[in-house]
Amino acid sequence: MKKLVNDVHNVVKETLEGFEAAHADVVTVHYDPDFITRTVKKETGKVGLISGGGSGHEPLHGGFVGYGMLDAAVPGAVFTSPTPDPIVEATKAADHGAGVLHIVKNYTGDVLNFETAAELCDMEDIKVATVITNDDVAVEDSLYTAGRRGVAGTFFVEKIAGAAAERGDDLETVRAIAQKVNDNTRSMGLALGACTVPHAGKPSFELDETEVEMGIGIHGEPGYRRIPMAPADVLTEEMYEKIKADLPFAEGDEVIVLVNGMGGTPVSELYIVNRKVHELLKRDGITPVRTLVGNYVTSLEMPGCSISLLKVHDDVVELFDAPVNTVAYRKGM
Amino acid sequence: MKKLVNDVHNVVKETLEGFEAAHADVVTVHYDPDFITRTVKKETGKVGLISGGGSGHEPLHGGFVGYGMLDAAVPGAVFTSPTPDPIVEATKAADHGAGVLHIVKNYTGDVLNFETAAELCDMEDIKVATVITNDDVAVEDSLYTAGRRGVAGTFFVEKIAGAAAERGDDLETVRAIAQKVNDNTRSMGLALGACTVPHAGKPSFELDETEVEMGIGIHGEPGYRRIPMAPADVLTEEMYEKIKADLPFAEGDEVIVLVNGMGGTPVSELYIVNRKVHELLKRDGITPVRTLVGNYVTSLEMPGCSISLLKVHDDVVELFDAPVNTVAYRKGM
Repeated sequence: MKKLVNDVHNVVKETLEGFEAAHADVVTVHYDPDFITRTVKKETGKVGLISGGGSGHEPLHGGFVGYGMLDAAVPGAVFTSPTPDPIVEATKAADHGAGVLHIVKNYTGDVLNFETAAELCDMEDIKVATVITNDDVAVEDSLYTAGRRGVAGTFFVEKIAGAAAERGDDLETVRAIAQKVNDNTRSMGLALGACTVPHAGKPSFELDETEVEMGIGIHGEPGYRRIPMAPADVLTEEMYEKIKADLPFAEGDEVIVLVNGMGGTPVSELYIVNRKVHELLKRDGITPVRTLVGNYVTSLEMPGCSISLLKVHDDVVELFDAPVNTVAYRKGM
Repeated sequence: MKKLVNDVHNVVKETLEGFEAAHADVVTVHYDPDFITRTVKKETGKVGLISGGGSGHEPLHGGFVGYGMLDAAVPGAVFTSPTPDPIVEATKAADHGAGVLHIVKNYTGDVLNFETAAELCDMEDIKVATVITNDDVAVEDSLYTAGRRGVAGTFFVEKIAGAAAERGDDLETVRAIAQKVNDNTRSMGLALGACTVPHAGKPSFELDETEVEMGIGIHGEPGYRRIPMAPADVLTEEMYEKIKADLPFAEGDEVIVLVNGMGGTPVSELYIVNRKVHELLKRDGITPVRTLVGNYVTSLEMPGCSISLLKVHDDVVELFDAPVNTVAYRKGM
């Protein structure tokens, strides 16, 4: 295993230390238990937003802490849910008196630990609401999931609910917006190779030199089939068709597009995928009103990508365009 | 070779098409010859800035076209200099009457082709000034270079000269600022593995499972030695010491730090490197006033990183902090 790490047991702590050293103007890192909060907090009485989960998906979630998105993030060990304790502490730190929304990707460990944390917060009279993201159309149930997995579409939920909280919406409104964004988002990914969890020391799965895993999860967990390597346009079309058929997206719809890198794929290849996505959307009479391309929700150094489409509804575009100032996503400020 | 591409001869064109499809609000792509300009041009009479070079280093340079940085970028084939023709067209497009600065990384092909283009522009009465970046301390002369290579420090030159042009500095002033930023910047990189140029179809070099290439170039060209894999802190210290000794950086200096990913390394590992850089700077009494961590100047999917330090001088921090609105770097707007 060749990785830029020291002791494999310290990767999360050392990542956090390096993260804070770079971005102390935006984020503050708390240790034991580990969580990340905004450096500049205005006591606006706004709804707090937190998210968290296993590390290894950077910039998710710590990179999205800041004005317009999350108030706090809770990183677990690599690909391992954080325990309730840091979630409780992060919730307290994010509470400005208007309650806190937990944004939880649908993995059994995450759901359980956030639920426990929410109960503990309730005992301390902090109102908590929860949205569980499950945008991945690839598989029902999976290695770590009852039901569908939460993947890159979680970014949309954090951005749009974050903007709603910032404008002063109350907890139930922010929760309902987050839920509707999740319900209108569909994603799917593929991998051209595996990633290596540092403390495991070897690749999480084996993929032949000529194979692609379609429907990969963000922890390298299996998709729905392996196929021989094919041109980008062919792979993109298979992902797109699965996504489109699922909601379904239809002629006349407007969508926000995210072509997301899994960590080890050059952004140039993501643009080749995006080119085909736009071609297919045009063919189907669906209008992409906003498009993001880059590494937003990764799986360490896994080569591969995912496509997410969010069907535009209500004032989602306005919220998507609202100013945001986080380490990994910045616009309008 | 597993890559998200179609015909290997179309990778640059298809990348550009996907890039424009995503970001038409910021960039406009021109074809045959290929170059990228800002979508929103204000006829301010400002100095124009262009850069270019082989593709495969994305987001450099196209990702840095926009308010506050470049007016245009010229992508060649992968790891291959663009010819003079598109450079001339990009220079014309970037000229608002106050002349154009060419920012050229020091590779023989780039230098030659930009020089020829500058002569052609001169015949059409467009004033061109040139800065050649050569921030890499790893090797003197190299596979594609007489003298030192221009690497990630080129980002600093584009950002800071871009801000100077935006505030209305004249061509000679912008050129002098760009030159001084280059002269005060030092970089060095390492690779844990190779990258594969699409039309070559195989890795550009072989690296043993236990080896690291110290001083790697951004095209996978050799560094100054291969060493056995070591902890991140050890590798970081070797890069840092080479960089520090070269300018040299000294106690009391202030620096801007860039920990840059080569494309295939997770950002979490870059933060582990950044942690050590900050520790070493503190030990040496050097103050990091700004820090960036991420994929700014890549080598396709090469796993590895580089460190760049810019010694603060004059009003460089103010220019660094000035608003910028490009696809890959956005701040203050």
